[in-house]
Amino acid sequence: MHCWVDGRPADALSLKDRGLAYGDGLFETIAVRSGQPQLLERHLQRLAEGCRRLALNADQALIRHEVLAYAAALGEGVLKLILTRGDSLRGYAADPAAMARRILQGAALPAYPAANAEQGIVLFPCATRLSEQPLLAGLKHLNRLEQVLARAEWRDAEHAEGLMLDGAGRVIEAVFSNLFLVSQGRLLTADLSRCGVAGVMRAEILFQAASLGISVEVTDISLDQLQQADEVFVCNSVYGIWPVRACAGMRWSAGPLTRKLQGITRALLDA
Amino acid sequence: MHCWVDGRPADALSLKDRGLAYGDGLFETIAVRSGQPQLLERHLQRLAEGCRRLALNADQALIRHEVLAYAAALGEGVLKLILTRGDSLRGYAADPAAMARRILQGAALPAYPAANAEQGIVLFPCATRLSEQPLLAGLKHLNRLEQVLARAEWRDAEHAEGLMLDGAGRVIEAVFSNLFLVSQGRLLTADLSRCGVAGVMRAEILFQAASLGISVEVTDISLDQLQQADEVFVCNSVYGIWPVRACAGMRWSAGPLTRKLQGITRALLDA
Repeated sequence: MHCWVDGRPADALSLKDRGLAYGDGLFETIAVRSGQPQLLERHLQRLAEGCRRLALNADQALIRHEVLAYAAALGEGVLKLILTRGDSLRGYAADPAAMARRILQGAALPAYPAANAEQGIVLFPCATRLSEQPLLAGLKHLNRLEQVLARAEWRDAEHAEGLMLDGAGRVIEAVFSNLFLVSQGRLLTADLSRCGVAGVMRAEILFQAASLGISVEVTDISLDQLQQADEVFVCNSVYGIWPVRACAGMRWSAGPLTRKLQGITRALLDA
Repeated sequence: MHCWVDGRPADALSLKDRGLAYGDGLFETIAVRSGQPQLLERHLQRLAEGCRRLALNADQALIRHEVLAYAAALGEGVLKLILTRGDSLRGYAADPAAMARRILQGAALPAYPAANAEQGIVLFPCATRLSEQPLLAGLKHLNRLEQVLARAEWRDAEHAEGLMLDGAGRVIEAVFSNLFLVSQGRLLTADLSRCGVAGVMRAEILFQAASLGISVEVTDISLDQLQQADEVFVCNSVYGIWPVRACAGMRWSAGPLTRKLQGITRALLDA
């Protein structure tokens, strides 16, 4: 399906775009089923928060309208929405009144092996560490070289995802997923106030777990805590939940809480 | 002047480019005088080092050839060279055999006030801190949101540049310049192994100073050391050297070593 730039079909982007020059923008990757963007409110909420923190002017109602129209035309697949601060003049200074450029792209749903969700995955232990930048932490912005470097650390098909730590050795997330631990009946995920991407599915799982009366904790997580966890899983808004069965000599089984939450996210994404 | 993409005139870029999606690439900003790219060897050397560290495949001889041809056509101005890892498939994984996409853009020389070089400038004390990422430190890569945020902290014309510290409070650089101190006859600039951009003019000044028998030191620099410096200046490969006369209550005079090095860089850029 054709891309849209500012609401019109387009193949190409201005070479002056600040998304290219500086990674000056944000993105969302949205699962689309039967023409409906899934978890749309959470995606739009994170995007609006990113716009606020980067002082990016965007017409949120227009974005919602375009995402709905594009998803309806796409039918089944993944919709990628990119917002950039538009064209650059010269240098880092931006026109504070400039409106964000809206880019919509469609693709087929990725063909992940069914075993990822069923038997669980093995995480590659990435040597690339996430740097601490509170001003950008949590945002799904376009500065993603750390993820590019981490993803280049393995090429075999045995590892479906990679584990990322921060510079202090805290367990933060996976390369394109968030990470959860189940420990003594509690659900834990990393505090993302220093680094990491606050995923839409992570937010949904925190909400669902709390609704089920499960104790949830957003906190710093050590490698020791990861090793001693009863269950480990990763999640994102396209594939839902994958149990994690191993990483660098550590082993876990897909336990009951992982399976319960996996059922809930599957229902959400198949809706 | 028209942009070139992979050696051909172009107005627009593929919407799948990884430079847009992830900031997955590098750039150089090169002063062009009388059709000649200035400090070309240093620019190409840094670019090659960046390609090596990001595992970006690029034909360095072809890049040199295109930069020379583009500069000859541009005559006077600033040539911006962007290398990206080409088009994305899906996700962060890249084709390890992919060749870098080459983008060349031309612009007029920026019209900085003559007073910047003559009387010196005032630095805005940016609150945005540089994060520590040794894997990317020193590179002129396309992940520049920290500079975008820092540059957005001031809009008045009184501040020509902004001072940036790292998370630990070390003095690192300016938003689009490197920073030097003169202290008791020695020339100091920040160690850029944790963060910062290792500028081409910084490298040239370190070389020139050493050739003049001046003691140079690349080291961690504290705000106290900055305050107590005898002279402070900023530099880049387009404007050369600007003395710094003030920043957040600190004051300095443009001293003899700043003026001597300024004369040398002016001669280099006017060559």
